[in-house]
Amino acid sequence: MDFPPLAWPAELYDDHFMLLDESSLPDAVRHIRIDDCKGAVAAIRAMQTRAFGQLLTVFYALILTARKASSAEGLRRAVEAACEDLNASRPTLSFQPYTDKVRAWTLDALEAGDERPAETLVGRIMEWLDRIKTMRLNRARLAAGLLEDGDTILTHCNTSGELLLAARVCRAGGKRLRFLATETRPYFQGRLTAWELSRDGFDVTLIPDNRAAAVLSAGKCTKVITGADRVALNGDIVNKTGTRQLAMLARRFGVPFFAFVQEPGTTATGEEVPIEQRDPVEVIRFRGKDVYPAGTDAFYPAFDMTPHPYITALITFEKILKPADLPAGWR
Amino acid sequence: MDFPPLAWPAELYDDHFMLLDESSLPDAVRHIRIDDCKGAVAAIRAMQTRAFGQLLTVFYALILTARKASSAEGLRRAVEAACEDLNASRPTLSFQPYTDKVRAWTLDALEAGDERPAETLVGRIMEWLDRIKTMRLNRARLAAGLLEDGDTILTHCNTSGELLLAARVCRAGGKRLRFLATETRPYFQGRLTAWELSRDGFDVTLIPDNRAAAVLSAGKCTKVITGADRVALNGDIVNKTGTRQLAMLARRFGVPFFAFVQEPGTTATGEEVPIEQRDPVEVIRFRGKDVYPAGTDAFYPAFDMTPHPYITALITFEKILKPADLPAGWR
Repeated sequence: MDFPPLAWPAELYDDHFMLLDESSLPDAVRHIRIDDCKGAVAAIRAMQTRAFGQLLTVFYALILTARKASSAEGLRRAVEAACEDLNASRPTLSFQPYTDKVRAWTLDALEAGDERPAETLVGRIMEWLDRIKTMRLNRARLAAGLLEDGDTILTHCNTSGELLLAARVCRAGGKRLRFLATETRPYFQGRLTAWELSRDGFDVTLIPDNRAAAVLSAGKCTKVITGADRVALNGDIVNKTGTRQLAMLARRFGVPFFAFVQEPGTTATGEEVPIEQRDPVEVIRFRGKDVYPAGTDAFYPAFDMTPHPYITALITFEKILKPADLPAGWR
Repeated sequence: MDFPPLAWPAELYDDHFMLLDESSLPDAVRHIRIDDCKGAVAAIRAMQTRAFGQLLTVFYALILTARKASSAEGLRRAVEAACEDLNASRPTLSFQPYTDKVRAWTLDALEAGDERPAETLVGRIMEWLDRIKTMRLNRARLAAGLLEDGDTILTHCNTSGELLLAARVCRAGGKRLRFLATETRPYFQGRLTAWELSRDGFDVTLIPDNRAAAVLSAGKCTKVITGADRVALNGDIVNKTGTRQLAMLARRFGVPFFAFVQEPGTTATGEEVPIEQRDPVEVIRFRGKDVYPAGTDAFYPAFDMTPHPYITALITFEKILKPADLPAGWR
């Protein structure tokens, strides 16, 4: 199955990559050219890419960095510096587990006395990305197994194409689905979800974030599925602001709540995850226009933490896991 | 105490009234001229006025109608027609109890053989509006009695200045308050609340609608207060979409939830109240700019119903009433 745009939002060339600018969607399907790690950090900070696109940006930036190195020592130093810059770009979805891998691969190649360490490193990153692709497809198939013919799925923010991948699996199996997408203020990522689902022929309806309880109470939604920027070993998730109340309300109305998750790494509980505070101007202004009076105070932590008791099950790369059944050190 | 702009958003002249255009706030403080009932209906439908402003518009439009009548029979017919048009303008906040009063006053004047029935009618409407002003001030004082020094109050949509009136009473009594205002998508009425509170010197911070659970769970809010477009005899309220989930989340986190209410009339439960479905384009476009792809489906019921068990107390014109203690036929 080919990946939809938001599921693999960049294309790699020899000395640059082209990144789908998610901030300009759906008005324009525009790609920005990224030549180096600095450009990658800027795109991540400006939220021109987000969620899975950030990881892809990190890996592609490290490939460009490796390709430019002219010596073994230069490679080591350049990778080191790039990893530090990338790790510092945004705090909540931590890139460190990924940059740590790339650092380790770099040292492997250097210590093995590899003649072309940069090429070896690039090969390993590409291999890893292929593995991620397969793992994500597998996760989408697992999610499809949770869905039934006639389901109406409420989602929040955007799952980087993964809910769409699951929906395609359902369609191929003859299951009909409908979608409700929250707007997801202040960045309106609901526009991304509406865009990707509707261009693929799925029935999707937007609702204001504040409409969730009314929709759930009216029995208009049979399942809630979101992504998760982070998951902890106890099953807590950290995801786009608003996920917590959606999960609480779903529980209140007896609607199951699922989340696509990555590997938890060493994070014990959701409380440990730093919550990024973004500039309140992102609440105040929308597309260059002030929504609020000059000088208005706003509060915009980009994420919130959903405690595991509100989560019916986590959709991991390998299986569906109930938080209560998580094995120690699961992945 | 003089009324802040949103608490009394129109000024009456001989043959027209000037209505504060709430849709252009806070960019511009603009008034629109209303000459007749037709203009009043158009302003109500376009949400240039809302909440209490709608009632004021209804009464002022009926005054203009009365002043233009040239005979007793003409007055009766014109009032009848105007009441019908006004009642049909928006469904959820019903104007009927108010237009019924004006119809009854018209018939009183005609049956009494009054020589200047139109003048008598206008006099009764003005008297009634004065009474409403006094009742609203009283309700704001009751609300102030619920608030304590150091409180942080979360509000939703806009209470037509009533929360601000209560805040002024608190300030005069030395109580310091802070406010959190939800944005209230899709119309962003939070901009009205932020505008009126900040221009009066109060500390107000906007939060996205989806941030309520995170704010409540962090203990950052000590009370929730909203208005209510309708209240039922059992204590259910119908208010701006999003009120229901706010009340549910407040209950979950042990934060009291209060609502300013009018008289219930004969509405037995919230289920009886028709919920206005507004044009989905109001979700799709913001200030002339598309937020979502052309053809995106959206769902925008303007109100939702909050069942009385989630309400700590109703702030009526005369007292603070817990839903469980409501006397039969209370007002």
